[in-house]
Formats: sequence, structure tokens, C-alpha cells
Amino acid sequence: MSEKKAADLGKPAHARDAGEVKRWHREADVVIVGCGGAGVCAALEARAAGAEVLVLERAWKGGGTSAQASGQLYMGGGTPLQKACGFEDDPEEMYKYLVASCGPGADAEKIRVYCERSVEHYHWITGKGVPFKPTFLPVEVGTDPSTDDGLSYTGSELAYPFCEIARPAPRGHTAQQEGENAGGMMMDVLMGHLAPAGVEVVNDALCEPLIVDHDGRVAGVVAAVGGEEICVRARRGVVLTAGGYIHNKAMLERYAPVTRRVRFRLGCDGDDGRGIRMGMSARGDAIRMEAACIVVPFSRNRQFVKGVLVNAAGQRFCAEDLYQSLLGEIGMWRQDGRIYLVLDDALYEKPQLPTEILAVGESFAELEAEAKIFPRGSLVHTLETYNAGAARGEDPQFRKGAGWLQPLATPPFVVLDLSLEKYPFWSAFTLGGLHTRPTGEVLDPDGEVVPGLYAAGRNASGMPAHGYNSGLSLADATFSGRLAGAAAAKASR
Amino acid sequence: MSEKKAADLGKPAHARDAGEVKRWHREADVVIVGCGGAGVCAALEARAAGAEVLVLERAWKGGGTSAQASGQLYMGGGTPLQKACGFEDDPEEMYKYLVASCGPGADAEKIRVYCERSVEHYHWITGKGVPFKPTFLPVEVGTDPSTDDGLSYTGSELAYPFCEIARPAPRGHTAQQEGENAGGMMMDVLMGHLAPAGVEVVNDALCEPLIVDHDGRVAGVVAAVGGEEICVRARRGVVLTAGGYIHNKAMLERYAPVTRRVRFRLGCDGDDGRGIRMGMSARGDAIRMEAACIVVPFSRNRQFVKGVLVNAAGQRFCAEDLYQSLLGEIGMWRQDGRIYLVLDDALYEKPQLPTEILAVGESFAELEAEAKIFPRGSLVHTLETYNAGAARGEDPQFRKGAGWLQPLATPPFVVLDLSLEKYPFWSAFTLGGLHTRPTGEVLDPDGEVVPGLYAAGRNASGMPAHGYNSGLSLADATFSGRLAGAAAAKASR
Repeated sequence: MSEKKAADLGKPAHARDAGEVKRWHREADVVIVGCGGAGVCAALEARAAGAEVLVLERAWKGGGTSAQASGQLYMGGGTPLQKACGFEDDPEEMYKYLVASCGPGADAEKIRVYCERSVEHYHWITGKGVPFKPTFLPVEVGTDPSTDDGLSYTGSELAYPFCEIARPAPRGHTAQQEGENAGGMMMDVLMGHLAPAGVEVVNDALCEPLIVDHDGRVAGVVAAVGGEEICVRARRGVVLTAGGYIHNKAMLERYAPVTRRVRFRLGCDGDDGRGIRMGMSARGDAIRMEAACIVVPFSRNRQFVKGVLVNAAGQRFCAEDLYQSLLGEIGMWRQDGRIYLVLDDALYEKPQLPTEILAVGESFAELEAEAKIFPRGSLVHTLETYNAGAARGEDPQFRKGAGWLQPLATPPFVVLDLSLEKYPFWSAFTLGGLHTRPTGEVLDPDGEVVPGLYAAGRNASGMPAHGYNSGLSLADATFSGRLAGAAAAKASR
Repeated sequence: MSEKKAADLGKPAHARDAGEVKRWHREADVVIVGCGGAGVCAALEARAAGAEVLVLERAWKGGGTSAQASGQLYMGGGTPLQKACGFEDDPEEMYKYLVASCGPGADAEKIRVYCERSVEHYHWITGKGVPFKPTFLPVEVGTDPSTDDGLSYTGSELAYPFCEIARPAPRGHTAQQEGENAGGMMMDVLMGHLAPAGVEVVNDALCEPLIVDHDGRVAGVVAAVGGEEICVRARRGVVLTAGGYIHNKAMLERYAPVTRRVRFRLGCDGDDGRGIRMGMSARGDAIRMEAACIVVPFSRNRQFVKGVLVNAAGQRFCAEDLYQSLLGEIGMWRQDGRIYLVLDDALYEKPQLPTEILAVGESFAELEAEAKIFPRGSLVHTLETYNAGAARGEDPQFRKGAGWLQPLATPPFVVLDLSLEKYPFWSAFTLGGLHTRPTGEVLDPDGEVVPGLYAAGRNASGMPAHGYNSGLSLADATFSGRLAGAAAAKASR
């Protein structure tokens, strides 16, 4: 699956003029570029709408980044799984939460459509045979799907201010699978429907560039298959579902210089931005390109949430019970990647993800002196203030949830170094991409539809921008894929 | 000059196929779109290189945003003005400072070229007749050019950490003019050279779209002149110098959702992003579109720098002697627009820019209680800590310069509300634009040159990204304009 060369920016993606096509080697109503989570759902829905569908996948088999994922889908509004676990939810509460937690730059229109159809989407996914175990993983135990529990909190729903903006409900739906790679299982299940439905998938087919009619309509795509270049005509539309661009350093440099600083980049080899650039070369507009999901997974040890996060000035800067991806956003954009966790001996245990110890001390003063980086008195004051509040069961500064509040009272105390420089588990993937309507229609810089072109998944800019909840990428992939496939199938020839 | 309708996104900018052009009404070697700071310099240099040049300006006269500006150019590396005022500088120190203060996302290559040629650029500008008075405005007195002094600090050169990264020197060169609008004078002087040099300017000429050859080369531009659409052929190149996009709300929404929150938007009516979109429609890539200069001008009262800035948690978050545009970047991206200034009676005076008073108190405790928004004890601790350090002549937290340190010791104390919600003087303009080489050649999403297309000024992404110093926009405009004009003139037909 390695495509290091392809990930270079050497090869031009200029759209090709349809007039230059000497022969159309293949054709279909809907041609889908990439067989990840978005591609497979686009294919199934386009086929269900009666279209002849051809899927072109660059790797030796489909799956993409979705198959590497943990299998969490952010769904809600009252799904059967939520009900089975005893949680009330409705589309309006889900909408309010997502708009608040995914912005600035959250796509309210996409969020609206998704919230209204999220229960239907759950039925679609489960109808395809993706199982969800009707058990709830309490937030005190975890959020990452290290168990096979179906439902968990995968965002900051319970944390201030979100708990006051919308009634909290857990919306992380994790497909049931032993181990952590339920995404692989989910993709196998979904891809298993392609052949029976009559969808052809061509693997080892690297697409580039798009083929564009004289009038700007996307007419097809060029693909390299078996060492040969073929021209594939799309009678109704091309759907770009070729992923994000986290593995393309040149693109990160241009569009996301802040995200570029994160070294652990999440995505399959194919996330080189090719699909986005193909779309741009056919006049598609790429938007919110600076946006990324940035994660600091310090809270796998759940009791660490009871610790105190501080910045380089020795100050607290947020409630520790904010979800790990929101913490990543804040830690990167607001704290320049310099964050630290203070624990006492009652909370300390071996970190699940190895962490450098910056300092140990028998008192706050000793701890601060040992750490060397904090201004004199700053850490002592921060911890004394935190302890005084926690003893009263409150956090007047950042309103961390009462269940996570307990004074740091048992020496020795320790500072764990979670800074970007020292903690290698900061991770990121891009959220920016082609500007699309909720239907998947790609828009140009003037906000007009590029005829014949659709995009979905991380190839498009989806629901979140400067704020992320786990499960939104598979949600965007599967749901926006479905809508794009259906729309392309219905497009006029 | 009002072009409210044109600023809508209704009108498509799709590039037009040269094959559809029935008649070329006009032609020139180099066609320049927009007669602001970048356009006029591009025109003069293209003409100096022997090209026949035509400038198309949408307004009734040229000038653009440069003519509304305060006439500050960021120049250095040892200019005659710096020397006359007794300051040492060299290109390397200037380079180190700019890279550190303009990033992440600073364009090191452009900065390198500019620093190496900044002295030459000074001679070019002054050679055209733009005067600079050889006097220095001390930073204790001001940075905004409210006087006619030629040289001042217009960045954070003296502030930590920059003072340790590069040897500080003042580099804000303000053209000499009574009042604040030296930019208007500068543009009049520069535009005065156009006709004598043989450059024709057509005003009231709204350009859109570009005209593109079958092979992707930009061949010209369509312009609406006197109610008629004319096609203008560019034998060597089109230079886009049509400004930024701060007045286009739809574009802000897409590309810069954080900047969109700033209400006071700096730029002439023409800053609707049209030039950027024209370039994108001819395959040009727009990069760092989220970047903006954001200013919080609290320090026009210079002694306010001796006050203490705090966030909504009652904490300090930066040294108060950072320049106002860096404070804007920090205040917006890191503090969510919620910042406050604490003064004592010794420092308080009537703010030059009206500011709401959030609280007054005879003691820090009373002040904190009056303000209501700060967590209990937070502001008191912050101020006591600050005072203790200031009494020793140091700021261990953020290393504010010693000259600005003095304890807040004279009651009553006051909190001024500088938050985005309450302080209307937050201002912004965009920094993102077309991806160009230092030569002005526009690059496509694959990093390849779009033949025949150049961009300069705010139509391009320039030197700064997430960090700004005053004078960089006129520097980018005039210098990148010159380079683009020269490059276009030398391009093969």
C-alpha cells in the first residue's frame, strides 16, 4: 500500500480537456474515486438509485483511512442504541451541541441535515450488517473504544459550557469488534455489499487528472491501471472520495502551517490530498484548509482527568474534562503546544502512553522549582487555588465537572510533560477540503456548482472546523458519501 | 467608489476560453488588474523593463487600500533613514525577526528576498519622490504615525522573545505627510509617474473574468468599461493586484471563520476578493486563507502599556509591550477575543479610543468583585504577582520590558473592557491569497506555474501569516508589485 512517490507533489493534476481524449476505455453513470468509507457508501447509494457505478481505488484493496479507524460514528438524535442504553436525545440538542463544539467554521447546514437524518443513517448502517452492542461505556471508564461497548461519550457533551448549551447525550457509536479496529470490520461489511449490488471496483487504479468538457462540466477521470492510462467516462458524475491531505507536507506547509507541527499524522498512505487537488484543478474550491483534528490523548488513564493541566506560564487554561480532541485544538492553537499535567500520588499511575516526567516534588513549591520552566510562584498559586475550589466541590475558573474534582493532597506531586516537543502522541488529521453542498455537489470559488463533480468524506470540508468530536469523520464519510452518491446518480446526463 | 453590488458573490468569475473571444478590443504586453500600491509598482517596473503596459482600475481613480493606509512601509537592513536616525541594522537580523514574528506560515523565501533588497527598495521608493523625514519616534511616545516622524517601531522587535532572537531595530518607515494619511500622498506620488512613463490607466474598468488559452495560459482579461464588455489581450502576462477579501463576507465565512468575527474591516471597497477568485478560476491556488492581520489598538495611550492585560480567567496571557497586531492575533486566536486591561490611577487617563469601564475598585479585591466575570481570587493574585515582580524590575511570567514595568499601586484601580464584544476598535484585514513565487508567478495546486499569470500585494499570500507587523502590507504591495511587473515584462510571448 505504500505510495510514497505518489504522495510527492511532482505530478500535475491539471484537469484534462475532454477534447483531447482519443478513446473512452470505460464508462459508467457514476465514477467514484477512492473506496474508503465515503466511496463505498457513495457507491451503494448511487447503485440503489439505479446508476451503473464504477469505483476506482488506488490501493490494492479498498478501505482507506476508515478501515484503519476505531469504528466510531458520531450519531444521535435518539438512535435505537441510545434508547437501548437509556439515553434521551433529539436532533435539536444534537444540532446545538455540534454547532457549538465544531466551530468557528462549523458547517451549520451540513450539521442540520445530518442531525435530522442521523437516526435514519443509523438504520442504514445497521441495515447493512454493521453491529453495535447495546451497552454503554461510562465516561469514568473511558471514551476510546478499548472495550466492545457500543455507546460512549466521544466529545465534550458533559463538560462546561456545552452541558449548558445542549442536553448531553453520548453519541459515539462504536461498531462491535474485539480489539480496536472496528473500522476495518465495518469497511469489510460495507464493501461486501458492492459486488452483490453490481458495483464494480477496480483496485490498483490511481486516478489523476479529471477530464473536463469544454463547458467546464466534469466528464470523467484518467486512471493508471496496470501500467496503462485509461480514460473513464462518467455519464452522470464523478464522486471524489479520496481522503484528506495529512500526509502531504507541501500542502500542510501552504494551507495548515500550525497543523504541520504535529508529527504523528493519522491517515492511510492515500491521504496525500490528491483528490482535493484534482477537484481544485476542475475549478472546485477548497475551504477551511487550516482546520484539523488535533488530539492530545493524555486521558486514557481516566483518573488523569482529575489532575490539573497547566501551560508554560504555570496557569490552568481549560477544564481537564474537555474531550481530548478539543484539548488538542486548544493546546495547539491557544497554548502553542506547551501543556503539562500535574498529579499527586493518589492519582499517579503508569501512563498508558509513555510520558516524560518533568518534575517530582514533596510540596508544590518543590515541584515548581524542580520543573524550572514555570515563573516563580505561578504553579504553587495555581494548585493552591485549584485545591481550595476542589475541596468545596467547585472549579470557579473553568467549571470542571464535580465528579473529576479532588484536591491534589498526597505527596509526592508530579508534572508530566505533555508538550508537543516531548509527548509524541499528539496526533492530527486534516479537516479542510473541497467546498460542497450537503448533497456533495462541489462549488467553485464563486459558490456555483461545478457540473458533474461531487466530493465526500475528508475530500470535502465537512461538519467540523475548529473543534472536533470523535466519530465525526466516519459520520461525515458515510453520510456525505451516501448523499453524494445519491445526488450523482440522479444528475442529468 | 461604492461597489456594494460588485462585492456580492453573485457574479461568476469563471475563466473564459480564449477560443470564445470574437475580438480583442485592446492589447498590451502586460495588463495589470488594479491600480493600488501593488498595481502601480508593477506597472512602473514592467514599463521600465520595456513593456507596453495597460492598467485597469475598477474605481474612478487608482489608489486602492494603499491610498487609505497610514503610509508605513516595513523596511530595514540598514536603510539611509535608519542610519540617519542612528540605528544599526542588517538583512540577516531583519530576516530572523520577520521569520519569527510572521509565523507559523511565514513565507521564509519571500522574506529572504525582501530583506536582501530592502535597502534597494528604499532607494527605489524615495527615488520616485516619496519623502521620509529623518527623525525617529521613540516607542515610549508612539508607533502609530500620528506625527510626521519617518522612523518608528511598528512591531515587537524590542519585546521578548524577539529581542533575543534578533537585534532590534525600528523598521517602520512612514512617508512624510501632515496628518495620518501619508498613504494617499505616497500613492499620488507613485501614480504621478505613470503617464510620464507612458503607462495608460483605464479607470472605471471592472475586470472579470480572466481569458485562458486552450493550454491553460492566461491570455488576457475581460473588463467592463463604460457599460461595454471588452476583451484585453496580454501578450506577456496579466498581473493581478486587486487586493484582499476582507469585505467579502461569504469568503470570510468559508476561509477565515475566526477573522469573520472582527467587525471593523480595513480595506477599500474593492477588497472583495475578486482578484483572488479570478486567479483561482484560472487554476491559481489560494493559500493561508485563514491568516489575517488583527489589531487591538489599546496602546495609543502609550502609558497603557504599563497596565496589565488579563483574560476572562483573570490571568495575564502575554507581555503588554507586544505590538498591537501581535496582540490582536493572540487575543483572537488564543483568548477568544476576551481581553481586559487593568490600570491604576497613576496610569489612567482618558482612552484615545473610547473604552467601556468594566469595574472600578479601591482595592484589587474590590475591583475583582466589581468586575464580576473573574474567578474569585484570580485577578487579585495576578495583580499582586505582577506588582511584586514589577517592584523588583522584572516580569518572570512574560518578560515585559523593564521600561514598562511599574507596580499598580495608586487606587482607585480600573478594568477597561477590550473584549471583542465591547471594544469596537478591533480591526482586521486578510493576509491569505494566491500562492506565488517571490517573482509573482502564480502557482497552481500542484505547485506549478500558471503561465501568463502574476499576482502581488494582498491578492497574493505575502510575507506574514500568523503574525503581523505594521508596514508589511505596503512593503508586500510595493515590493512584490515591482517584482511581478518586472517578471511579467520579461516573460516570453
